[in-house]
Amino acid sequence: MNKKIHIFDSSLRDGAQGSGISYSLDDKIKITKQLDILGVDYIEAGNPGSNQKDREYFDAMNKQTLKNATLVAFGSTRRKDVDVKKDINIQNLLSANTKAISIFGKSWDFHVKSVIITTLEENIKMIYDTICYLKSCGKEVIYDAEHFFDGFKANPTYAMDTLKIAQSAGADCLVLCDTNGGSFPDDVYNITKNLRESLSCEIGIHCHNDIGVAVANSLMAVKAGATHVQGTFLGIGERCGNANLSTIISNMQVKSGYHCIEDSMISELTPAARYIAEVSNIPLDRSMPYVGANAFAHKGGMHIDGIMKAKGSFEHIDPEVVGNTRKFLMSEVSGKNTVINRINKIDPSITKDSVVTKEIVELLKSLESQGYQFEGAEASFELVIRKHLGLYKPFFSLEYYKIIEEQEASGSKNECTASAMIKVMVKGKTEMTAAEGNGPVNAIDKAIRKALGLFYGKLKDFHLSDYKVRVLDGTNTAAKVRVLIESTDGEDYWTTVGVSTNIIEASVHALVDSIEYKLTRDLENGRN
Amino acid sequence: MNKKIHIFDSSLRDGAQGSGISYSLDDKIKITKQLDILGVDYIEAGNPGSNQKDREYFDAMNKQTLKNATLVAFGSTRRKDVDVKKDINIQNLLSANTKAISIFGKSWDFHVKSVIITTLEENIKMIYDTICYLKSCGKEVIYDAEHFFDGFKANPTYAMDTLKIAQSAGADCLVLCDTNGGSFPDDVYNITKNLRESLSCEIGIHCHNDIGVAVANSLMAVKAGATHVQGTFLGIGERCGNANLSTIISNMQVKSGYHCIEDSMISELTPAARYIAEVSNIPLDRSMPYVGANAFAHKGGMHIDGIMKAKGSFEHIDPEVVGNTRKFLMSEVSGKNTVINRINKIDPSITKDSVVTKEIVELLKSLESQGYQFEGAEASFELVIRKHLGLYKPFFSLEYYKIIEEQEASGSKNECTASAMIKVMVKGKTEMTAAEGNGPVNAIDKAIRKALGLFYGKLKDFHLSDYKVRVLDGTNTAAKVRVLIESTDGEDYWTTVGVSTNIIEASVHALVDSIEYKLTRDLENGRN
Repeated sequence: MNKKIHIFDSSLRDGAQGSGISYSLDDKIKITKQLDILGVDYIEAGNPGSNQKDREYFDAMNKQTLKNATLVAFGSTRRKDVDVKKDINIQNLLSANTKAISIFGKSWDFHVKSVIITTLEENIKMIYDTICYLKSCGKEVIYDAEHFFDGFKANPTYAMDTLKIAQSAGADCLVLCDTNGGSFPDDVYNITKNLRESLSCEIGIHCHNDIGVAVANSLMAVKAGATHVQGTFLGIGERCGNANLSTIISNMQVKSGYHCIEDSMISELTPAARYIAEVSNIPLDRSMPYVGANAFAHKGGMHIDGIMKAKGSFEHIDPEVVGNTRKFLMSEVSGKNTVINRINKIDPSITKDSVVTKEIVELLKSLESQGYQFEGAEASFELVIRKHLGLYKPFFSLEYYKIIEEQEASGSKNECTASAMIKVMVKGKTEMTAAEGNGPVNAIDKAIRKALGLFYGKLKDFHLSDYKVRVLDGTNTAAKVRVLIESTDGEDYWTTVGVSTNIIEASVHALVDSIEYKLTRDLENGRN
Repeated sequence: MNKKIHIFDSSLRDGAQGSGISYSLDDKIKITKQLDILGVDYIEAGNPGSNQKDREYFDAMNKQTLKNATLVAFGSTRRKDVDVKKDINIQNLLSANTKAISIFGKSWDFHVKSVIITTLEENIKMIYDTICYLKSCGKEVIYDAEHFFDGFKANPTYAMDTLKIAQSAGADCLVLCDTNGGSFPDDVYNITKNLRESLSCEIGIHCHNDIGVAVANSLMAVKAGATHVQGTFLGIGERCGNANLSTIISNMQVKSGYHCIEDSMISELTPAARYIAEVSNIPLDRSMPYVGANAFAHKGGMHIDGIMKAKGSFEHIDPEVVGNTRKFLMSEVSGKNTVINRINKIDPSITKDSVVTKEIVELLKSLESQGYQFEGAEASFELVIRKHLGLYKPFFSLEYYKIIEEQEASGSKNECTASAMIKVMVKGKTEMTAAEGNGPVNAIDKAIRKALGLFYGKLKDFHLSDYKVRVLDGTNTAAKVRVLIESTDGEDYWTTVGVSTNIIEASVHALVDSIEYKLTRDLENGRN
């Protein structure tokens, strides 16, 4: 059995402190579920004392059961000169009702004196009281020793004392934090090794990437004896981000013989990274190790030549191990394996070697090169397959639309009106109608469903549950956009995609796909 | 005197093998000059044997003089079973007329047998002949031992023999390449240290980032005795990229007591990174260590509070050292401290306790509750402050706009047209115009700038560099959206925000803010 390393994901807490990240309650729940399926050990999800949104999250999660992960609420040690049982933040932490709590405290004498402004003794008591109290409440306590490495360099005896008191108070894990992210790998190794020899408690590591070595520091700490690694799945976080767990899990489990998650989930790392990026509404860095779109993309002629002769010649691992694919940037090559699973859902008789399989792979590649992405939009991909196999029954066609958007005058009277006029054809009959909306997409959504509702009553039951826009390859108002629309009829959720340089056109494509998918499925279930 | 480390930049060669990078001759010359001003020691600029563009580049550069850097042409050892003097690639390399040449050869027996397909003996001769010949032509020869670490692990004796022969042939530097990017920091350290003890020649290091540790590996090699570091200034390169030199130079010179470039140029690292990203036509990763826009951006309330009390509390270095700036990201958690810094940029006489400070904090909260987010949209926030203080001079007003979006028919003829009609008023004069675009936002962007360009010529210089849409709390096509627009005039970047249930209206607000900000700033700098 390989040595087990506990993976502690803080995307929803430290990650949410990254610039540009703003999770809704729904986003947080989606990410929690994805991380749980993947099999991380801990999910740190917020500070129930600091904001309302985090409190709602814990209330919602208390009604659900996770398969693998332990949910963790995050907060600080009690405030100075306050009875721990009367500290409102500590009470808020307990009210989150999680099995585990992570508590951060100060290890750096400079911070004790200059930031929390108290005595070194009181800080020691704050750590002790808080951990003792939480342990007496039956919690698993993960103690984050904030700024540990800086503190250890400045005053090793004091930094060490903060850990010893946390250990004696009953902490389950002592996490060495490189909070400012400025420590070097050899220092992290040496200091962790020193501690491993003088402490009996489990040791964890929490690194930031301010000098570009968060992954290396985490690995060096593990080499020195740490068995708990904190980070965020995509490396998001304050300033330059946290240690990237998708990279660390891969490095440790695929290349170094440690055990982090189930072996069968390693090939889910790439799809999970793409899903979490999508929910976080951030582009997934294409050059991200293991999971980035270009992590195994070859461009140099000599590299491509090498790969053609021997796969291992310019790749450190086989990309399929982590669910990624090799790419030759001049002529993209992608795998049949993924596609055949989807095809078989519609027609089980088709095999990997069938001509249509090859055709659909080509079609997929061509759509992807136009900016489509089907990872989070399975409903659209199912329609692509159905249409290619001739198994799609058209329910309607959108014959025409016109959207008018008008702003009367600037200044006080600031109203902008959007209206849409549309014509649909259903079973040879045309229906024209119009609707106003809170914006162009809302207006056309309303108009289309108004017209189709005359023919398909069931369309009243469904509504859009999410709408996401991503600008592709960036970079100005003429750039291509990808729109993802999630819809629900109360029972199921499905997602469709549209791509265009025109945001309205992309939205309309995704909208039409969503309705087509709903009608197709209802027909199969005898509900039309 | 601190120990000198030679910096070898391969942005124009290995970097150009990164996905999405395509340098024109002019781009290459611009980047060469920037790197030379910064003071890197070597600039590897291409393979004159492999393409015409590289040859033109060397011809152009032969007419210029660099202040600091040595230009390097790149190529492989002679081909197997060919007289080195008759090898056309070697002759092309010489024709580049550079003082230094970097030559890569094989150190991994697997590559000798499976990729170049020759005997181990012939490969040794290829290395020897090539280096001897280039030395006899008076060149400085940098020998890149491709796949050295993988080769050393597979067959240490043979890998070592390839270095020994290169040394005896007169190579000036032996560069250990982790070509596949899969080596770990401790291995790199141990292997480099072993070599440092058995070779007399200068040792260099060349790392790729496939497991996320290229920077750490480069630093560990230096600790083990390497004095020449290869990489690319922004980390671009094949697959997951090369070692990031902007990070490495900062780590070594600012934090570790090595000497890489002139001390006075360290504060130019951030502007240089932005310039090189601009010329490379790639967005500079905001979370890039030292030089990224968010490298010193603080968001968590406790971090901001800490920084206000003591600067070093949540920063590993002072951002100004590398020419970057501290930022407090505006968010619900940040409070008065953050706001007063912004206000003081406009009016230094206002204090934390002034009535207007309180008013602006309230205004900020109210705008945030409507869905605004000023974190990352400082330009819009500056306008909010200016307007509240009565210090905003209106440059124009958008009096009216109308957008029409029309799709003729579905099916084969799938074209959707967007056009915008607008009226602006400037200094009492109105100007009405119209434009077509790739979508509604592009159309109105074009129309507004067309009209305002008549009054403010400088508006031609700026363009939008990023456009982001976020659906708030999301959830259907009537939901509120937040649009963030980043603009640049080539020197500066600024971001503005708009919020509405209508995506067009939100985009127009952000667009108008961007133009107002640009005009305000130009006026202050005497450029209107």
